[in-house]
Amino acid sequence: MTKEQYLLEHQAYQEKVAAYSLALTTLSWDAYTIAPKKGAPYRNKMAAFLSGELFSITTDPSVIERIEAMSHLDYDEITNREIAQMKKEIDKTRYIPKDVYVAYNNLVRDANDVWEEAKSTSNYELFKPILKKLIEQTKLVMSYRKDSRSIYEQLLDDYETNMGIKEYDAFFSKLRSDIVPLIHQIKAKNIERPKWMSAKVPLDQQAKVVERLAQFLDYSKDSGQISLSVHPFSQDFSAHDNRVTVRYLEDNFTSSIFALIHEVGHATYNGQVNEAYDGRYIRKSMTFGLHESQSRFLENMLGRSKAFWESFYTEIQDLVPLLKTVSLDEFISGINHVQASLIRIEADELTYPLHVMVRYEIEKGLFDGSLGVENLDQVWADKIEEYLGVRPQNASVGVLQDVHWSGAMFGYFPTYALGSAYSAQWMSALRKDMDVEETLRNQDFKKIKAWLKDKIHTHGGVYEPQELLLRVTQETFNPQYYVDYLKDKVKHIIES
Amino acid sequence: MTKEQYLLEHQAYQEKVAAYSLALTTLSWDAYTIAPKKGAPYRNKMAAFLSGELFSITTDPSVIERIEAMSHLDYDEITNREIAQMKKEIDKTRYIPKDVYVAYNNLVRDANDVWEEAKSTSNYELFKPILKKLIEQTKLVMSYRKDSRSIYEQLLDDYETNMGIKEYDAFFSKLRSDIVPLIHQIKAKNIERPKWMSAKVPLDQQAKVVERLAQFLDYSKDSGQISLSVHPFSQDFSAHDNRVTVRYLEDNFTSSIFALIHEVGHATYNGQVNEAYDGRYIRKSMTFGLHESQSRFLENMLGRSKAFWESFYTEIQDLVPLLKTVSLDEFISGINHVQASLIRIEADELTYPLHVMVRYEIEKGLFDGSLGVENLDQVWADKIEEYLGVRPQNASVGVLQDVHWSGAMFGYFPTYALGSAYSAQWMSALRKDMDVEETLRNQDFKKIKAWLKDKIHTHGGVYEPQELLLRVTQETFNPQYYVDYLKDKVKHIIES
Repeated sequence: MTKEQYLLEHQAYQEKVAAYSLALTTLSWDAYTIAPKKGAPYRNKMAAFLSGELFSITTDPSVIERIEAMSHLDYDEITNREIAQMKKEIDKTRYIPKDVYVAYNNLVRDANDVWEEAKSTSNYELFKPILKKLIEQTKLVMSYRKDSRSIYEQLLDDYETNMGIKEYDAFFSKLRSDIVPLIHQIKAKNIERPKWMSAKVPLDQQAKVVERLAQFLDYSKDSGQISLSVHPFSQDFSAHDNRVTVRYLEDNFTSSIFALIHEVGHATYNGQVNEAYDGRYIRKSMTFGLHESQSRFLENMLGRSKAFWESFYTEIQDLVPLLKTVSLDEFISGINHVQASLIRIEADELTYPLHVMVRYEIEKGLFDGSLGVENLDQVWADKIEEYLGVRPQNASVGVLQDVHWSGAMFGYFPTYALGSAYSAQWMSALRKDMDVEETLRNQDFKKIKAWLKDKIHTHGGVYEPQELLLRVTQETFNPQYYVDYLKDKVKHIIES
Repeated sequence: MTKEQYLLEHQAYQEKVAAYSLALTTLSWDAYTIAPKKGAPYRNKMAAFLSGELFSITTDPSVIERIEAMSHLDYDEITNREIAQMKKEIDKTRYIPKDVYVAYNNLVRDANDVWEEAKSTSNYELFKPILKKLIEQTKLVMSYRKDSRSIYEQLLDDYETNMGIKEYDAFFSKLRSDIVPLIHQIKAKNIERPKWMSAKVPLDQQAKVVERLAQFLDYSKDSGQISLSVHPFSQDFSAHDNRVTVRYLEDNFTSSIFALIHEVGHATYNGQVNEAYDGRYIRKSMTFGLHESQSRFLENMLGRSKAFWESFYTEIQDLVPLLKTVSLDEFISGINHVQASLIRIEADELTYPLHVMVRYEIEKGLFDGSLGVENLDQVWADKIEEYLGVRPQNASVGVLQDVHWSGAMFGYFPTYALGSAYSAQWMSALRKDMDVEETLRNQDFKKIKAWLKDKIHTHGGVYEPQELLLRVTQETFNPQYYVDYLKDKVKHIIES
């Protein structure tokens, strides 16, 4: 077969995968937003069938052969990178015996049910045996890869190319030395969360604020959609179809505000990928850390700054009359309130990465053998107490709080902290190109959006994180930006 | 292959078709409700790809062979009927040469664009040549069927089994003799449409009425969903997932009321089909006329009756304060207002079937050669004037108003009138089993719903219309019920 024939087949293959993926994406979006619950069994059965069809398509030996062959040929740069990424992905699973792989997948499916039961009854002992098996089977499955690095090293690389134990150790050690003391100092001040933050705000008022924010962020209904779901998420359909969801909590109205900004950060990334990549692997292959860096950038770097709100805070006060008695400074202080707590997804900006660090340290220990599953709930509680000064009284708000381990997603957590850290580095680069505060005060988010597109979004998954950081910020990942940002942010609290 | 092996293969085939169908259904629902418009080109391309996959699956020679083989074997009654229906469907297209079929499909696709342009510019001359081609190519495609009946006879049968020219001639001739005079008598009285019907009603008030009606009709969010779309429709996903859409017109609030009741009529039918048929051909093979008979039953037989509203009209008045000055009798009179008009989909119950009759007479003429496309706009206008006493001043509100002919859906229209006529026959049967008015006044729609399930819905597409009518009403289709119902309904207007 000629080089060109391979390429034509590759393109046809990608279109086929894209069609099935869009169908599954749409079924999933539908299920999480409006689908009636009683239709779930039938819907799930049919979605599983289609997933099976897609699995057959992507694991067909002819596909593996073609990618292998193309990886030795020279195409344009984008295609070369795409093929290299696809080959790397295929190499991860191609040598696993089918029975091992099936057993692993069955275990993961069962583990989710066990975790749900264990979490709802706060019973770590129930989850412990299957967690042990999950680690063992993950090690087994990974052992078939022709990769000499340690298992956890490989897992970290799966979720974030270029980031391994050495890099994460350096990153978290910096957080431990620089941030943990700040948390303890702030905790000692016993600053109360402002009362207005838990006052009841009617859902239609919250919806209007969300609409106004979408407008501010140039997030249009023409190529987007804001729906409701139990947990906020964003969903990429195609270059011109990127949707988000929010949820409205009556007694925590800033929750929907930051969920919207966060998800629009993801949606804007997907929506600004070079349209020519629509339907291609390269469109969606950006790392978890890079994606999170865009949502965190909008949510924290911009959305929690005074300049963001300054120009239209009076409008927000009109939409939410409760805020008439809350000054802009009080509002900004409230949305940046620091308070050590037990649940990662509810944590503020300063304490958040420490929640992640606890998970990283435990995962590392579980895979290098220095930790076992025995008493992991206590290990967890000890670490949380050490870093945050609070202690979970049960496993449900401790070691069992996250779904990830039940899905064998070891190595995923660190990317959450990395996203925030990357976002601080992007911010420093953006500042060199424009006066960010002035741009926000001018309600000219489009200018920032264009910068993000040009520097980051348009490339989709073409570049690895370190490459992209180097291109945009002239240096590879440097956690100092993040630490400086956090320190600067809480300075006035520490000094108060 | 053994009889049992065929059956197993048949079942696997049906599950596969069901999975692809659900994906396409979900994509379509998404597109018509919330999908961002700029995502349409990509979405349409991917949906077309998946449609192609489904087409390949259903037209695979092995499928045709299996159905053929199974049609000579004896299974349970349901399977026998299902196989017979599938064979009938396959026989319609299997002998058409591929190039003829492709040319036909291309023509239909092009015709839609031409029709849209012609309609928006009210230019029948633009549509005329392609309408001529559509008729010719339909005749050509149909000529490959091994069926000795006339083309139009076959087309009518495609949309409504058991109904042919003889039956429709009898039906429409009855409408012509009995209903047309009534329309002219009422027209002469110049009764004005009540002003409150076009008063502005805020959309949130309309939405609350729709919610209340859904509750009255036992239409639950657990297995249903009410969304918004440009044109109201219902969509069957599975036994426990049947959705509807409405639209809210500020100055025509009863429009959303009857759209909701109508679509819930369809959804209730689909939702009450025997759950064991989920994913099978037999689940969805009820005729167009039967389906429309269920939507019309709820909309007209029940929804426009005084008994329907009597028990909760004061609640509706609370939801729509405008109605505080409209008595129940005035409300009932308003929603049954008769007024000859030009547009079929806006017509009242009495004039509606005459709109359909015009289309039937024209289609019949086009296919038996007694009519050509030349001056069809004038032929149309003459007939509308003769039956309804009003005359379209341009083709956009005349011959070009409906999409059907541009889609080569000749033979479809008559089922619309048939649905209403069937519904009157169902009503007469229901009355033998319960006091319908009392049941409605007791807000016990569940009792009627259970009757519909037991008599009609549970069977899905198992029975042909005449069989089902005979089972439930002890006679085959009898248009007298419909004519009597209409006459009785307008008697007080005629006599006033």
